[in-house]
Amino acid sequence: MKISELGEFAFIDHFAPVFTKNLKKGVLGIGDDCAVITLDDRRVMLITTDMLIEDSHFLRQSIPPADLGYKSLAVNLSDIAAMGGIPNYAFLSLGIPKDVEVEWMDLFFSGMHELCNEANVQLLGGDTTRSGNHLIINIGVIGEALIEHVKYRSSALPGDIICVTGELGDSGGGLRLILENIAAGDLEDLLVKRHHRPRAHLAEGQWLGAQKGVHAMMDVSDGIDSDLHRIMERSLCGAQVDLNSLPCSSELQEACVKYNWDLYELAATGGEDYCLICTIDPQAGESIMREFKEKFERDLFPIGRIISENTLNYYDQDILVRFKRHGFDHFA
Amino acid sequence: MKISELGEFAFIDHFAPVFTKNLKKGVLGIGDDCAVITLDDRRVMLITTDMLIEDSHFLRQSIPPADLGYKSLAVNLSDIAAMGGIPNYAFLSLGIPKDVEVEWMDLFFSGMHELCNEANVQLLGGDTTRSGNHLIINIGVIGEALIEHVKYRSSALPGDIICVTGELGDSGGGLRLILENIAAGDLEDLLVKRHHRPRAHLAEGQWLGAQKGVHAMMDVSDGIDSDLHRIMERSLCGAQVDLNSLPCSSELQEACVKYNWDLYELAATGGEDYCLICTIDPQAGESIMREFKEKFERDLFPIGRIISENTLNYYDQDILVRFKRHGFDHFA
Repeated sequence: MKISELGEFAFIDHFAPVFTKNLKKGVLGIGDDCAVITLDDRRVMLITTDMLIEDSHFLRQSIPPADLGYKSLAVNLSDIAAMGGIPNYAFLSLGIPKDVEVEWMDLFFSGMHELCNEANVQLLGGDTTRSGNHLIINIGVIGEALIEHVKYRSSALPGDIICVTGELGDSGGGLRLILENIAAGDLEDLLVKRHHRPRAHLAEGQWLGAQKGVHAMMDVSDGIDSDLHRIMERSLCGAQVDLNSLPCSSELQEACVKYNWDLYELAATGGEDYCLICTIDPQAGESIMREFKEKFERDLFPIGRIISENTLNYYDQDILVRFKRHGFDHFA
Repeated sequence: MKISELGEFAFIDHFAPVFTKNLKKGVLGIGDDCAVITLDDRRVMLITTDMLIEDSHFLRQSIPPADLGYKSLAVNLSDIAAMGGIPNYAFLSLGIPKDVEVEWMDLFFSGMHELCNEANVQLLGGDTTRSGNHLIINIGVIGEALIEHVKYRSSALPGDIICVTGELGDSGGGLRLILENIAAGDLEDLLVKRHHRPRAHLAEGQWLGAQKGVHAMMDVSDGIDSDLHRIMERSLCGAQVDLNSLPCSSELQEACVKYNWDLYELAATGGEDYCLICTIDPQAGESIMREFKEKFERDLFPIGRIISENTLNYYDQDILVRFKRHGFDHFA
């Protein structure tokens, strides 16, 4: 059977069970943004890993090498943020094709080092090897969190307010500009930059992790459409999303008019936003949103509700909406 | 500049310094078989990662998928063994081309799961994604060791006896048979199997780690010729190796006669043996070798001496020998 017939997530569900039974006590395996290993009676270790492959995840001719170094680490830090953790150490495996030169790699490393400094992460090891014609980057990150601060995908409850920590769709818009080879202007440059240099919401994740009223949390990597399905599967619930409340930048709105893109579809399915999506106890929602705004001088955006029925519905002013495309599946 | 002009190890030395300065206390970064992070006043955590790329590290048409799953994990466990540690957890990133089917991956996972069970290792997470035309496997392993049991590449001293924990060259012979497309017989099958399903010397590594007389240790991944250079660089010393004392299986000796291969060159440079090489205080050498034999019912083979001069010399009955090829360099 072809893996594409199963799809990415069914494929994982197919092979994972043999590895997830009989885990040691205090250990969480496959199924969340990070694996969780209890360190002592106060702290857990968080571990995540992500592989980026040229032409599947990035176009080497489009992305500046320093941005690629930065982004490769950022997407992993985003997984640590999603569990409410602090990243500590990174491990880098590189498969390098013959036509990549030392000077190009120097720029790649400078971008990665920039984010190591910003996030206080130390690169401790890895592997370098020859690849055929695609550059391959695998990063693993180890972080930690206080046990009571860790947030899981499995903790959403019906009635919870669904919130996101940043604007949606800019990265997807930037990717569309790259793939459609649209010539650059200031507007286009900005969206492409948002795709090439995402910011991991580490401070937001740590703060939200410390709030008892925050139930479930994950990062927005494949688009909220796909990511909400992950929360729904783990929490055995559904969700409804109010499209009018999706936060979109003025630049994305402008680009959608200019290029005749569907703003809501891009915001919900574009992917690679790398902000956080969380579900909040309705009793605590108002105060958490107010305190978030005081702390970060930006909004925590409510976009919908968790429901008990296992379905994801989008509403545009009370009218049910269906998208042509859904979130990203690597094997689709 | 092309990376091949630098070579794998000079390339690492070129980019590593910016990442290895100002490390947190109790942390060892790039430069040994594993990174080392102090956990408490008794224990350290060991972390290693290795990337295997189709056509660079394996031929998908030659290696049975279960063997590939087994080997991908074994080469990482070997790095934990090399530091005297116990492996605990594994993380797997897969880049899968379109023509790899679910049934093939099931066999791959069965081989990996077999070794997980053997070594009491739990697979806790990873990443699955689409690759172009090459299967890509990245594994990270987390292990632990008692602080006083950890052995480093940097601790060899002039006068130390160099020992290996297993026979050398079988894997290199197996690879040569695969690359030269030599039809299979019992002899050939056995050497190919040694290449496809290496055994990580975990029990040996833990035992040697507990011996005070063992100074430096690493695993034999690129061939002792390359690996001894790594010990020499870190320990600021040299080595002399007695070719007649290199342990070689009767099967390899038979194949060398049959195919007119250079036995010593294959043993010293073939690579992927995944036994351990260590250097032992000459005062303790005899008792450690005797106790090793009692414990494992196999020999700990002395093959040479650490010297102070920074050179690696091979002797065949007191005659200095030079090889045409040296250990494996991924970028050569």
